[in-house]
Amino acid sequence: MSAKLKTAVLGATGYSGLELTRILHRHPKLEKPVLLRRNGSNGAGNVSDGNQIDANQADVNLADVFPALSGNGGYPLQKLSWPELQRLGVKLLFLATPHEASRSLVPEAMANGLRVIDLSGAWRLKEARHRAIYNFQDSDAATAAELTDKAVYGLPELHSDCIAGADLVANPGCYATSVILALAPLLQAGVVDREHGIISDSKSGVSGAGKEPTARTHFVSVAENFSAYSVFGHRHVGEIVEQLQLTAQELIFTPHLLPIPRGILSTIYVRLNRAMQAAEVEACLREFYAQKRWVRIFATPKLPQVQFSLHTNYCDLGFCLAEDGRRLVLVSCIDNLLKGAAGQAVQNMNLMYGWTEEEGLL
Amino acid sequence: MSAKLKTAVLGATGYSGLELTRILHRHPKLEKPVLLRRNGSNGAGNVSDGNQIDANQADVNLADVFPALSGNGGYPLQKLSWPELQRLGVKLLFLATPHEASRSLVPEAMANGLRVIDLSGAWRLKEARHRAIYNFQDSDAATAAELTDKAVYGLPELHSDCIAGADLVANPGCYATSVILALAPLLQAGVVDREHGIISDSKSGVSGAGKEPTARTHFVSVAENFSAYSVFGHRHVGEIVEQLQLTAQELIFTPHLLPIPRGILSTIYVRLNRAMQAAEVEACLREFYAQKRWVRIFATPKLPQVQFSLHTNYCDLGFCLAEDGRRLVLVSCIDNLLKGAAGQAVQNMNLMYGWTEEEGLL
Amino acid sequence: MSAKLKTAVLGATGYSGLELTRILHRHPKLEKPVLLRRNGSNGAGNVSDGNQIDANQADVNLADVFPALSGNGGYPLQKLSWPELQRLGVKLLFLATPHEASRSLVPEAMANGLRVIDLSGAWRLKEARHRAIYNFQDSDAATAAELTDKAVYGLPELHSDCIAGADLVANPGCYATSVILALAPLLQAGVVDREHGIISDSKSGVSGAGKEPTARTHFVSVAENFSAYSVFGHRHVGEIVEQLQLTAQELIFTPHLLPIPRGILSTIYVRLNRAMQAAEVEACLREFYAQKRWVRIFATPKLPQVQFSLHTNYCDLGFCLAEDGRRLVLVSCIDNLLKGAAGQAVQNMNLMYGWTEEEGLL
Amino acid sequence: MSAKLKTAVLGATGYSGLELTRILHRHPKLEKPVLLRRNGSNGAGNVSDGNQIDANQADVNLADVFPALSGNGGYPLQKLSWPELQRLGVKLLFLATPHEASRSLVPEAMANGLRVIDLSGAWRLKEARHRAIYNFQDSDAATAAELTDKAVYGLPELHSDCIAGADLVANPGCYATSVILALAPLLQAGVVDREHGIISDSKSGVSGAGKEPTARTHFVSVAENFSAYSVFGHRHVGEIVEQLQLTAQELIFTPHLLPIPRGILSTIYVRLNRAMQAAEVEACLREFYAQKRWVRIFATPKLPQVQFSLHTNYCDLGFCLAEDGRRLVLVSCIDNLLKGAAGQAVQNMNLMYGWTEEEGLL
Repeated sequence: MSAKLKTAVLGATGYSGLELTRILHRHPKLEKPVLLRRNGSNGAGNVSDGNQIDANQADVNLADVFPALSGNGGYPLQKLSWPELQRLGVKLLFLATPHEASRSLVPEAMANGLRVIDLSGAWRLKEARHRAIYNFQDSDAATAAELTDKAVYGLPELHSDCIAGADLVANPGCYATSVILALAPLLQAGVVDREHGIISDSKSGVSGAGKEPTARTHFVSVAENFSAYSVFGHRHVGEIVEQLQLTAQELIFTPHLLPIPRGILSTIYVRLNRAMQAAEVEACLREFYAQKRWVRIFATPKLPQVQFSLHTNYCDLGFCLAEDGRRLVLVSCIDNLLKGAAGQAVQNMNLMYGWTEEEGLL
Repeated sequence: MSAKLKTAVLGATGYSGLELTRILHRHPKLEKPVLLRRNGSNGAGNVSDGNQIDANQADVNLADVFPALSGNGGYPLQKLSWPELQRLGVKLLFLATPHEASRSLVPEAMANGLRVIDLSGAWRLKEARHRAIYNFQDSDAATAAELTDKAVYGLPELHSDCIAGADLVANPGCYATSVILALAPLLQAGVVDREHGIISDSKSGVSGAGKEPTARTHFVSVAENFSAYSVFGHRHVGEIVEQLQLTAQELIFTPHLLPIPRGILSTIYVRLNRAMQAAEVEACLREFYAQKRWVRIFATPKLPQVQFSLHTNYCDLGFCLAEDGRRLVLVSCIDNLLKGAAGQAVQNMNLMYGWTEEEGLL
Repeated sequence: MSAKLKTAVLGATGYSGLELTRILHRHPKLEKPVLLRRNGSNGAGNVSDGNQIDANQADVNLADVFPALSGNGGYPLQKLSWPELQRLGVKLLFLATPHEASRSLVPEAMANGLRVIDLSGAWRLKEARHRAIYNFQDSDAATAAELTDKAVYGLPELHSDCIAGADLVANPGCYATSVILALAPLLQAGVVDREHGIISDSKSGVSGAGKEPTARTHFVSVAENFSAYSVFGHRHVGEIVEQLQLTAQELIFTPHLLPIPRGILSTIYVRLNRAMQAAEVEACLREFYAQKRWVRIFATPKLPQVQFSLHTNYCDLGFCLAEDGRRLVLVSCIDNLLKGAAGQAVQNMNLMYGWTEEEGLL
Repeated sequence: MSAKLKTAVLGATGYSGLELTRILHRHPKLEKPVLLRRNGSNGAGNVSDGNQIDANQADVNLADVFPALSGNGGYPLQKLSWPELQRLGVKLLFLATPHEASRSLVPEAMANGLRVIDLSGAWRLKEARHRAIYNFQDSDAATAAELTDKAVYGLPELHSDCIAGADLVANPGCYATSVILALAPLLQAGVVDREHGIISDSKSGVSGAGKEPTARTHFVSVAENFSAYSVFGHRHVGEIVEQLQLTAQELIFTPHLLPIPRGILSTIYVRLNRAMQAAEVEACLREFYAQKRWVRIFATPKLPQVQFSLHTNYCDLGFCLAEDGRRLVLVSCIDNLLKGAAGQAVQNMNLMYGWTEEEGLL
């Protein structure tokens, strides 16, 4: 029997990093993961996620940041050092870091022989016009271009074969996951009137906005409130249109902030190019995801709700079709920290190492 | 100086009725309102709003149902009796009752010489095909038809003249208010591509679902959750399409349940039939509501949020226009219990009696 | 290798029953559990937990009640039949039923050779004066008395030996668990001034009030609210004083309703009968729970919070000691559905069958 | 008829300041208040309340910070200047500033002939040992000592006469208000066994922690959570013991953070020094507050809840008495931003200018 895999996580002090750490610790194919902290020279990593870890403090434990982790023998955080990772036998590195950090760390990591699953937006986009919104400042443009080519968009339901062989997996954005999975079957079936335009009215819990305390994430600003933001200007639009091969004009994506800690629901409006029956639509979804462990199709008139997929790796899909058979409303729900981040990252790892897609995720 | 007006409220034990009662008590043009309870023969009114008032109990006080009202000298509830209302000099009756009750009570009330503002859906719809969803069982069809004709849809920003002279005002639905006010200026300006279709993705707090305890309104079902419901089948669609003179095919209306007690936000998607500038869109909205006290226009890129209009009678409107000048996203917010119910009812009363629209609402 | 154990659950449609079902399905020592529904003659079981299952409906699946369970092959509910349970080889029955139901079902179950873990209050109390609050109507008083004697109070940290050999385990109340575990070490050490009186100011999330929709559990009643209830009259007082061998006068227990779905925090006030150091108090707690997997001690000044033990089987304990060394404030947190119900039930099962206490609970 | 009073507010950008501004604008005895911002030399005032107002920005409007204030003609903020305040005829200054700022500003304000109501903790405490927790750095110790003597603790139910004649009113802390009002009647009646010790287990909504974004006020930290903090070390203890003439040993005060935006509930445990009847306790409370407009007594077994006093200036008091007639549990609720801050400040102003205590507060 083969030895267990040694992994490392950088960014365990954020919300996605915490979830990832929890999953990796109980994953049956893994050794206990190495938890990394960025050293001071990498900049204000400790500021960006709202923690009070002093960059020079020794013996930091993740349970100091998340007391929920107390009492299980400890989750020590060690400073990032490539030679040390090699010495420890680490083969796979998870980055749960801000996109700027991921952009600069991935070339280093790969030069040191590591496979990488990056949870940020640093390597998701192939087209420069879509990347522009991130304003990356690559110190080595040639390497960045090469890695951009090599990076595989880690949506397992669409790209399982490429993921299996990838050395760099760009884990999808949370909103993007919810929208792409809902639309991919119908677009592939060619039944969507793309020219008419597709609208995704998406709503996310607050953990999607990260752990840094801001006026916007203050409890009093969020509770008893609901708001739209970044209309026509959210970073995830690029991912969605690239993956679905849409033009930017064919998609309107409107994110909203829900007064809940986690969960995403996207309500997606599509015009079909011919009148269909609800059974046809359902069949289209079911066939597309027939072999997929982590997508659940709800039969109309049942619809997914945020609560149903919370704390799971599922993407739940449902729909309502108008009497005219042309106007379709899709509803897609995920847990933004699991299927929208850490769970999907583990699903990608499972593919990269030939394990079943549910390994460690039940 | 003229005498103060005497009003009565039936249904003060519901959420809208409570808000209405509070406003009427401090309204400077009114005597203390008479609070009515339905007698037993009107059926299980006490069941429908989740209260434990025994139909036969005497000396019921609204402060028993809502202890927040304690200590202000009492809000006694008396049984409904038309002769008693006449004896007390009541001229105007507010009905905050379920639509079936309003449908049967309004003919009686008007036969007894009262003007009526009905907060239910009983008298809002002129077209029989739209009323079908309510399945009204009118005992006197001729009178019902006559009153249906006489009833004025009580949206003051659109129908102030008719409301002023009305004896029966049908107070609009909460969702409908948020959608109609956002769309009316652009539709009147003729700039909307109606054939393309209009989408309102609307979200409401839980008080919109009423006070009756159900599995759906249980705290554990709502908290940490978010869900769509009644897609393609909500009662307010009829109001919206009648008021905006749309066909049913031209509108998709998708209500969702927010994990907050009150507030509505509608995100509305419109295709313009020519490219416009944001300034033009803003001017269109501002001109339409130039003289309207209770509509606030937000200049792009600012957008309304649920919190901003909470506990006020405002309808807040904002928008984002795509670079192509054709794809428009409107955002409309109200407090469903005020501009969506009790506040609007008082605004209607103010018009009916020649007072300023803000009287009692500040 | 020994065969896996066959279990059954009655009451899986309630909140505790759902959690229990989830744990049992992934417990490595168990076969898939049999999920039972009460038949119509057992009364309005479907009403009591707010579900819409028709008693006569065939082919009911738990995923119909909790769509979060969809897509895992189904959780069929079958009607309770003792012969059928024997035919299936069921050895252990979990009752997640109201206390009246448990009171009448346990004698039947045990007469049919089953071991039972009952999550209700039916069999927790030895003393008649404490049981009075439940007003049990035993049809066979002799059997009830016998079973009351045999029943073991299923708090594993206090009674692991008795639980191991028990045929009837009375799983503790959620509040009682949080209070007893905090106080037991200090009372055993004899350092508590019992005459002075002990106060537990306890706060619970809404799932503790059950799934039945009531005015009290309506979202609008709970959100933006907080309230005390059942002061000097809560059912769990009997358990606490029996287990801690207090007199009723020595304890004040005040429950409050928190606007969160789950979690309990008890703030407990104790006068020590001699001045102690914080280190002594901490040592007292740590020694008492030295071998206990599911209790975590927080070193002062760190205190447990509700969030830390949510979705785990931990009881988290912390404390603050006044400068005088006499006045002690203990803080105790649990997830009311896990350590306060389903998790503890599984912990008890693990003891009954000689497995480690953490089996199936990680 | 006398002219209206001219007031000014410094600190309107905080939560209490916003509420205060709203009340002052509709108060019938006042001219429109002057809204002040601190100039840059006073330090990072804009940081302390989490706003993004640049200290050098001109033409700042409070509606930019709180869009809920939009559309009412504007709330311009002007820089603090004593000569300008005199020129404008301002007679009364409200300080809704951090305590350090209030400590340095009050001497200046009074030297400029203004009466002051300070909402911070700067001037509440007479005894140096209680003030120590604030660590004030007075530049002019003599003046500070003199003003400390002159300052009147602005709890109108206890000190209405002194407040009427005061030039400096120290508005009480929110927690302190809830605790003092509950205990004062029983302590004055001499029925409390003070040696036994009094415990206040208090719970507050998040606005009590201020508007500055911190890890502690992040939505994800607060939602689905509940926690105790500052046990044996909260700043309000000094106020409570000074006002109630207790020794520090006679009171345990434990604050907790509730997952709601606003509202305080204190559960207070008292041992009576003789057995009493519930009716006696109720009479004691009622008599003490017989002429007090803003205290409501709940008759046992009814208890106040946070929701009942929300958005009002009421302090709601209720209680439960044990069968022994000795152990008493008091429940006290206020809205921390109104009776706990801005509402009480206005009540104090009303007393200072000889108006009724409810003026502007209905």
